[in-house]
Amino acid sequence: MTRVLLSEDHPQYVTEAHGCRFTGADGREYLDLMCGWGPVVLGYAHPAVRRAADEQTRLGDCVNGAAPVMVELAELLVDTVPSADWAMFAKNGTDATTTCVTIARAATGRRKVLTAHGAYHGAVPWCTPGKSGVTVEDRAHVDHFEYNDIASLGAAVDRAGGDLAAIVVCPFRHDVRRDQELADPEFARAVRALCNRTGAAMILDDVRCGFRLSLGGSWEPLGVRPDLAAWSKAMANGYALAAVTGIAALRDAASDVYVTGSFWYSAVSMAASVATLTELRETDALVRMDRAGQRLRDGLDAQAKRHGLEVNQTGPVQMPLLTFAGDPEFTVATRWAREAVTRGVYLHPTHNWFLSAAHTESDIDEILDRTEDAFAAIARSVGGLSPN
Amino acid sequence: MTRVLLSEDHPQYVTEAHGCRFTGADGREYLDLMCGWGPVVLGYAHPAVRRAADEQTRLGDCVNGAAPVMVELAELLVDTVPSADWAMFAKNGTDATTTCVTIARAATGRRKVLTAHGAYHGAVPWCTPGKSGVTVEDRAHVDHFEYNDIASLGAAVDRAGGDLAAIVVCPFRHDVRRDQELADPEFARAVRALCNRTGAAMILDDVRCGFRLSLGGSWEPLGVRPDLAAWSKAMANGYALAAVTGIAALRDAASDVYVTGSFWYSAVSMAASVATLTELRETDALVRMDRAGQRLRDGLDAQAKRHGLEVNQTGPVQMPLLTFAGDPEFTVATRWAREAVTRGVYLHPTHNWFLSAAHTESDIDEILDRTEDAFAAIARSVGGLSPN
Repeated sequence: MTRVLLSEDHPQYVTEAHGCRFTGADGREYLDLMCGWGPVVLGYAHPAVRRAADEQTRLGDCVNGAAPVMVELAELLVDTVPSADWAMFAKNGTDATTTCVTIARAATGRRKVLTAHGAYHGAVPWCTPGKSGVTVEDRAHVDHFEYNDIASLGAAVDRAGGDLAAIVVCPFRHDVRRDQELADPEFARAVRALCNRTGAAMILDDVRCGFRLSLGGSWEPLGVRPDLAAWSKAMANGYALAAVTGIAALRDAASDVYVTGSFWYSAVSMAASVATLTELRETDALVRMDRAGQRLRDGLDAQAKRHGLEVNQTGPVQMPLLTFAGDPEFTVATRWAREAVTRGVYLHPTHNWFLSAAHTESDIDEILDRTEDAFAAIARSVGGLSPN
Repeated sequence: MTRVLLSEDHPQYVTEAHGCRFTGADGREYLDLMCGWGPVVLGYAHPAVRRAADEQTRLGDCVNGAAPVMVELAELLVDTVPSADWAMFAKNGTDATTTCVTIARAATGRRKVLTAHGAYHGAVPWCTPGKSGVTVEDRAHVDHFEYNDIASLGAAVDRAGGDLAAIVVCPFRHDVRRDQELADPEFARAVRALCNRTGAAMILDDVRCGFRLSLGGSWEPLGVRPDLAAWSKAMANGYALAAVTGIAALRDAASDVYVTGSFWYSAVSMAASVATLTELRETDALVRMDRAGQRLRDGLDAQAKRHGLEVNQTGPVQMPLLTFAGDPEFTVATRWAREAVTRGVYLHPTHNWFLSAAHTESDIDEILDRTEDAFAAIARSVGGLSPN
């Protein structure tokens, strides 16, 4: 199992969080580049989201049926996401990906599911990166392809033969412990074409990227629309919620699959989601996040150059990762992350970071002030050549 | 698949909920006997729980790490539940049962898991009551026994042979569409003894009953303690939370299993849980709920008799079910539930109900006033003989 543990200088406990900053149990304030591992897209404790959640809390949360806001949210999703003709709700990203797979099997009467080698789709036996407690049968019908490799995908489709239920794919390759890799538009189109040809369901796992890169789905800019999409993290700015959306042709299969949970009607997270999606639709939040991410990337690039350090910055600028050249075990990245966190910038050496719309230009500049010193410390210790 | 749909007179949407009452989208107020399908153990919008949740909301909910309240809650659980040496947290009851099974497999290196025929342990392929989208392999290592039947359990244990990882059992038989059945203490002891003999983990699925029947675990009154327990519903009075607790010997296996979720650190539900468990520990909430349940049972019994209707009231009084004799398809039960709901009492014809500590004697009497008329309507239509 790949463990993604952080340094002992990373605070383990968080006592308070607002905007793009939080306070650790040691009383120190940190500028945050992880956003609660993704959910916080507008900033911690965003006032409009908080207000909507508080209002719904006064009415009711976990009750015997749906609150009217569930319909409002479903309609908002269908209006926002071009591939969505319907929506259903859950609590974890894993609930959403697992439900997508189950719907695909129900719809096709087939069993085989293809995922990319190393891709993370959740933490239950059919997909968890761990091996402990997992049986061979849990993964009996899961086969793999190489991300961005059309030939490899084609071969996996051939191996599945007439039993292919679904291809599950992330908007970009964001596996831990490797540089990130954007989707090749030709690869994305090939996924769609192979699903069309075989009748398998195309499942876009937009749990991590959804509502951060592009409102209507992370492959909308590529013009590639899934049959089913799994959503969670950013959709309610930190309130626990997940969703599956799908095309009309899969509505009956979705209705026929038995899924439920004690808190799946909980209305507060849905009110928070309506407020979050409304804010994302009606403001320039996504544009500002993109701009802040670019400013961070440019700044880090310049700093690394200045300190004679060769770095790779990969992934979308809103979900960036910085690694060091010639650092296969992430030793330097881990030390750099530690130097950053001791200077009050919380980021991760091997897992993509997340920006939020609360990151202003001046926050980014404050972050860069501190990473400058972190690079300097690394340059001193690895003997990097500073042109100065 | 067994569908548990309600009549068209049951409100599908809930606009507001307080104490043991809620308002439907039609503006009508209902006296509630479902408690959000179990989570609401102290009553909707309980002030102390709300206050704790609001305070934690001001600090932070979904952040990069744990809030201090996670440690507080883990310690409170370990202090409250005699079988718990540690605790871990999740979002759905299904997360908790699935994690228990995975830990048991990790600990034993074995695969077979036994559950009772018809028992509900969650809504993912290994255990869902549905068949759509489920493959044979999803259940390859799940075998079944008859609840309360020691011989049947022994036979299933024998079939598993040296490959038995766990026995999963509910505190009582609360399957839908049948009278409920309390656990025979001898059966409970046999589960424990068979796990001791084989080295399999004994998993108590206390998701539905936990913190409603008995604080330290629903089989504490029987003196039978599990190795792993799954909790959810009532533990945070409606805030989305689940937990696994276990014995010290399973701590390493639990640490080795890869499970996580984007909202598993969310602190608000944990603060709500600390407040809920504290209220349950420090007040007579459980005693009052028991008393209210008994008052309801006695009242319904007397009413049925008065109307010449033979009913079966089964399960613990806090989680009751009422069915009619000679009504195998629940036709009469469904009509009676409909007569009740049109009179403003929300209850279910085939799924156990839930009481909360917010149900006062006068609330129960008000419920009984209305069920009296519902029985009268049934007696008229089925030609039941009224002694009056």
